[in-house]
Amino acid sequence: MKMKLAVLPGDGIGPEVMDAAIRVLKTVLDNYGHEAVFENALIGGAAIDEAGTPLPEETLDICRRSDAILLGAVGGPKWDHNPASLRPEKGLLGIRKEMGLFANLRPVKAYAPLLNASPLKRERVENVDLVIVRELTGGLYFGRPSERRGPDGNEVIDTLAYTREEIERIIEKAFQLAQIRRKKLASVDKANVLESSRMWREIAEETAKKYPDVEVSHMLVDSTSMQLIANPGQFDVIVTENMFGDILSDEASVITGSLGMLPSASLRSDRFGMYEPVHGSAPDIAGQGKANPLGMVLSAALMLRYSFGLEKEAAAIEKAVDDVLQDGYCTGDLQVKNGKVVSTHELTDKLIEKLNN
Amino acid sequence: MKMKLAVLPGDGIGPEVMDAAIRVLKTVLDNYGHEAVFENALIGGAAIDEAGTPLPEETLDICRRSDAILLGAVGGPKWDHNPASLRPEKGLLGIRKEMGLFANLRPVKAYAPLLNASPLKRERVENVDLVIVRELTGGLYFGRPSERRGPDGNEVIDTLAYTREEIERIIEKAFQLAQIRRKKLASVDKANVLESSRMWREIAEETAKKYPDVEVSHMLVDSTSMQLIANPGQFDVIVTENMFGDILSDEASVITGSLGMLPSASLRSDRFGMYEPVHGSAPDIAGQGKANPLGMVLSAALMLRYSFGLEKEAAAIEKAVDDVLQDGYCTGDLQVKNGKVVSTHELTDKLIEKLNN
Ligand SMILES: CC(C)[C@H](C(=O)O)[C@@H](O)C(=O)O
Ligand SMILES: CC(C)[C@H](C(=O)O)[C@@H](O)C(=O)O
Repeated sequence: MKMKLAVLPGDGIGPEVMDAAIRVLKTVLDNYGHEAVFENALIGGAAIDEAGTPLPEETLDICRRSDAILLGAVGGPKWDHNPASLRPEKGLLGIRKEMGLFANLRPVKAYAPLLNASPLKRERVENVDLVIVRELTGGLYFGRPSERRGPDGNEVIDTLAYTREEIERIIEKAFQLAQIRRKKLASVDKANVLESSRMWREIAEETAKKYPDVEVSHMLVDSTSMQLIANPGQFDVIVTENMFGDILSDEASVITGSLGMLPSASLRSDRFGMYEPVHGSAPDIAGQGKANPLGMVLSAALMLRYSFGLEKEAAAIEKAVDDVLQDGYCTGDLQVKNGKVVSTHELTDKLIEKLNN
Repeated sequence: MKMKLAVLPGDGIGPEVMDAAIRVLKTVLDNYGHEAVFENALIGGAAIDEAGTPLPEETLDICRRSDAILLGAVGGPKWDHNPASLRPEKGLLGIRKEMGLFANLRPVKAYAPLLNASPLKRERVENVDLVIVRELTGGLYFGRPSERRGPDGNEVIDTLAYTREEIERIIEKAFQLAQIRRKKLASVDKANVLESSRMWREIAEETAKKYPDVEVSHMLVDSTSMQLIANPGQFDVIVTENMFGDILSDEASVITGSLGMLPSASLRSDRFGMYEPVHGSAPDIAGQGKANPLGMVLSAALMLRYSFGLEKEAAAIEKAVDDVLQDGYCTGDLQVKNGKVVSTHELTDKLIEKLNN
């Protein structure tokens, strides 16, 4: 197979973890006889510095002529006091919207060697294996108006807006995912308060009829934020609105103690997708060889699986990650018990060794 | 002191825990030479059943001529399929709005005998002592429009609306609270996405100038939902928007393993307030004498402190609760190590014994 990949390293540790992921990707593609062309492009703070905007037109062009996007991370204190239109996050929000990436998937899985680092008691998290499906291009993030009002600008409003179609497609996606997993879907809303949530719940109930083999529950967002801590093992797939998903997926990402390892995929209805680690740009450790590359590496594995249907190749990467952790190798963030802390580059070497064995 | 109290037991275990709280309250008021008049009123499902509406005008009248409100809990499966206007929650949202109770305070504190039941590792929670201050009468809960749109009703919007004054008064409240506590305030928003959050952050920054002794940080809501689990001990006072507060306060309420014990206060600028436990109406155990009365009892203590300035009396109740738990008495929800599980009434008897000693 031949693939064209857009590579957007971004800011902070983005370039380092991207380097690692591309080395790993090249190894596995080589081993299985595939070819990839990589095209680099600017985003976030790096794009502001070099091109005066967080999402240059050229970057979008490169993404449009690619089969998938790999993204490192964006943001840092350097740009924190810029006006809203010149903030690194604008690049991220912009590329999601422009490329139509409406479905954000964030798998959270317990890794035995890392459970030490979990803030939760071991018995609560050792069986965690869930995916949060977050709507990514609508809701409170993109609704208009979003502005100051009144004679002195002393009123402010934001808007949570959805069309039926936008809700339908994300809920379909979640049902499809549940069907190839443990067939349990929690649809999360605030139907006792929000009209948009009542429409969300109606659509989830309608869609459920098409998937009789999937067990659906409707949960309130406040209760879900409790349950995610009290009993995270109960969840398989969770689907929810953009802002709720932002909050719940970050909450979920810390429960297993493996934040630095978590990948994400942002998809649309065809096979196109953008893949990025859940962690941020960690400017405090950038350029020191301390960054954990596993979140980015596992994002590349998700890309092989979702955008190219290369299941074996994806699984090979995931197995290499497991094996390296079992051997006790890790970066400083990953408190593996009796672990050997190595650099970003060395950990990547270990992964490549495993892949070549 | 003489006080007039509106008593709204509500649904499920509401009446049982209210009974307990009133017995405790009468004891402490007696002991300290105060007088109280209690007036009962309907709310929630009970009000729907008896008066055809979740918030009868008579209930509001009784509340308006009282000095404070005690509320049990509302809701239950019986009313879950009612139309939106005939849902128990409407009573709760209505009374908050009608009485102008814009500041919801939810203290979360680690109780050593209960840390067993926490989903978090002991060392992460044993020093937790925080208060979430949630804006309660604005934001995404009350903004208009909140409706279906388009020719076929296939579009839906909700609105997150605030005036400067609404944000100012809740942030002031939080600063005042921080000042009499550990002088740390986390103002939580989503300023990288929402215009309302940018206004929120500006106002928090302005207000901070009036409280130079309070250390303020501005945190994003997604990052806060992580930090509440990863390191809850870092927080003193947290202030945030209505919907963010709903999600974060429920999340916070499970971390110490003492959900059934948590009180809340909903206040306005004068001393008037409504006091209710954080837990729900628990219809599954209603009427069986299993309900934990401590959340309601501690809410009554908050009432004495905030609405009547009776610090000694409030502290007496809080000490009685501590002592009873230390003695190992508890209800079934409270996995106290080697605890003696007793009924709602018996636990209340124990509290009264302590108060009379
Ligand atoms: C950087 C920010 C705009 C973004 C979001 O809120 O979507 C981030 O928190 C995320 O979850 O990817
Ligand atoms: C019952 C519901 C409307 C209410 C809310 O969302 O405010 C509840 O969850 C709470 O937190 O008091």
